[in-house]
Amino acid sequence: MSEVKDNKNLSRKEVSYNKLKGLGEEIIEDVIKKDIPSLKVPSRGTSNIVYDDAKRYFVLGDRYGKRSLGNVKQIKKIGQMVQVANFCKDLVQREKTATLREMYYVSEGWDIGFDNQQESNIVGEDIEVTLGMSREDLGLMPEEDGASVYGNIILKEGDVEIDALKSGKSGYTISPTIDEVEFLDHDVERVIAVETMGMFHRMVQEEAYKKFNTLIVGLKGQAARATRRFLKRVNEELNLPVYICNDGDPWGFHIAMVIISGSAKLAHVNHDLATPNAKFLGVTASDIVNYELPTDPLKDIDVLRLKELSNDPRYRDPTWQTEIKKMLKIGKKAEQQSFSKYGLEYVVDTYFPEKLELLS
Amino acid sequence: MSEVKDNKNLSRKEVSYNKLKGLGEEIIEDVIKKDIPSLKVPSRGTSNIVYDDAKRYFVLGDRYGKRSLGNVKQIKKIGQMVQVANFCKDLVQREKTATLREMYYVSEGWDIGFDNQQESNIVGEDIEVTLGMSREDLGLMPEEDGASVYGNIILKEGDVEIDALKSGKSGYTISPTIDEVEFLDHDVERVIAVETMGMFHRMVQEEAYKKFNTLIVGLKGQAARATRRFLKRVNEELNLPVYICNDGDPWGFHIAMVIISGSAKLAHVNHDLATPNAKFLGVTASDIVNYELPTDPLKDIDVLRLKELSNDPRYRDPTWQTEIKKMLKIGKKAEQQSFSKYGLEYVVDTYFPEKLELLS
Repeated sequence: MSEVKDNKNLSRKEVSYNKLKGLGEEIIEDVIKKDIPSLKVPSRGTSNIVYDDAKRYFVLGDRYGKRSLGNVKQIKKIGQMVQVANFCKDLVQREKTATLREMYYVSEGWDIGFDNQQESNIVGEDIEVTLGMSREDLGLMPEEDGASVYGNIILKEGDVEIDALKSGKSGYTISPTIDEVEFLDHDVERVIAVETMGMFHRMVQEEAYKKFNTLIVGLKGQAARATRRFLKRVNEELNLPVYICNDGDPWGFHIAMVIISGSAKLAHVNHDLATPNAKFLGVTASDIVNYELPTDPLKDIDVLRLKELSNDPRYRDPTWQTEIKKMLKIGKKAEQQSFSKYGLEYVVDTYFPEKLELLS
Repeated sequence: MSEVKDNKNLSRKEVSYNKLKGLGEEIIEDVIKKDIPSLKVPSRGTSNIVYDDAKRYFVLGDRYGKRSLGNVKQIKKIGQMVQVANFCKDLVQREKTATLREMYYVSEGWDIGFDNQQESNIVGEDIEVTLGMSREDLGLMPEEDGASVYGNIILKEGDVEIDALKSGKSGYTISPTIDEVEFLDHDVERVIAVETMGMFHRMVQEEAYKKFNTLIVGLKGQAARATRRFLKRVNEELNLPVYICNDGDPWGFHIAMVIISGSAKLAHVNHDLATPNAKFLGVTASDIVNYELPTDPLKDIDVLRLKELSNDPRYRDPTWQTEIKKMLKIGKKAEQQSFSKYGLEYVVDTYFPEKLELLS
């Protein structure tokens, strides 16, 4: 693919199209040169997933596998890759998208099909890593929508302008095609993402968007890819600091950490998804103690998970290490909503201001 | 509560406030009359849940339990009911809402608290059935948002006007406070609700909203209470026919049926949630055969569930009985997205027009 460059003047769509076309051209060139056509596919095995200290997220290492039409066992796999790449090229060209599920069904009409959807998903990922692009760039969309956004920002999707203060109380929903969205204008100083829609609605109701001049993002649990992309974009393109407030337990910690430092499984696209400058605002073990929050005892599985986190390179930072140790020591966890012990308004009137001051 | 009337000139909020206040006044009256204060709470036991053939949904029967301050075992329960009713009255008065989780945490500051959240949830339900109002009317909101809506309708939330064609590709999100939303204007002839966001995005992309002059509603699986309320309101207030298109399996059938005829568990609020005129558009067992869809074999649990449905009064209709029998006979199920076998556009270009004509 030496002739295909990531030209900065090209749109993401054009780059995708060229890369997909390049994959086929590479095979044709081999045929013309009478070489045996082959493709290099970067390895996604555990041993090739490396934590990059400078980038502060997981990346893929240098190892790759070669798939050659000279190897009988690999012929079907190459055929599948070419079919999927062709399907994606068609999607990009026609400005359409499809879910992985739809692609699997569409493949029923192909000469080389799949035995099950898992197989077609894996070939989709093969194309992602081979081209170094995320599947959204290839027109393959996840089923799920992203987070809800409320606050003073104007976005543009196609020719439609959207005001995230005027999209209803549940806000603007980040769509899977977030990379096609333009940021037209905004008047906020920061972004606060919260784990649950319960807390999102609390913040809208208490007018946290005014009080902290912030966007409010309701993650709905583990952040969807589109949400992570949105947070990265507002952080890097609009220079807005991003704060994450989740439940005070290992699962809440890790929902934040996947936003901050990406996941190992998606090492090949973390450069598009991770927001290493995002900060964890709480709920921390220290908060549980300092605010005397209502708690639940840690379960065995919580303890196990906390111990795993403490050995994870993404949690190397001393603050994380301290907080994990402290939670193990007190043996307790607490939810975001537990601040309601002091009244519904407390979290916005007292907790957020105090924590934001500490972090800024 | 003889003095409190459902006056049509009062807003839902005012009715809620009066009913909540009435609950306390009833107790005070008993005290003044030197009677032993007691409350009548309609029974939610299985034997008091009746399918109403005329209404076409489950309702509560006439049985009720009496809770009296003269019974030592019931004193705590009455105390809890009064506390919760008072908390709700305060919410309604201050135009606030809280989640059940928040209420549980708030209750930590009360003289009469709860041992766990399940206990406080049940008391919340006690108030609902006693007053014959849904908990949203009492300010107690579910955590989850409702469906996504795309199409030509203008809504008003507070002083904000929302155009569901201009809220982004993922549409307008129905918020838990859907009863406060006004329908200002629309230019559609029908509503089509689909089970998955994958299908929702397919319909937006293929411009189904134009082709069928329809609102598109993405249910995201089992419909949230706010979604069911929205569908009922557009059906009854705007006279729009509602069609539901789900996966062709017992779970898809039942997601539709809960929208149409409500659930047994919520018999006390089905009058606000059920849309008996909504129609199931597909995917039916007949569709699986007629369109030669890609299928999966029915699992044991699917067969079991289909047999349960065939004995459920909500499925008495001969069409349902035929379709359930047919699915059991072919032993197969199919997803909405399986129409992609014929290309991404097929479902909008061919399937929907054919089925809509059959049903109208």
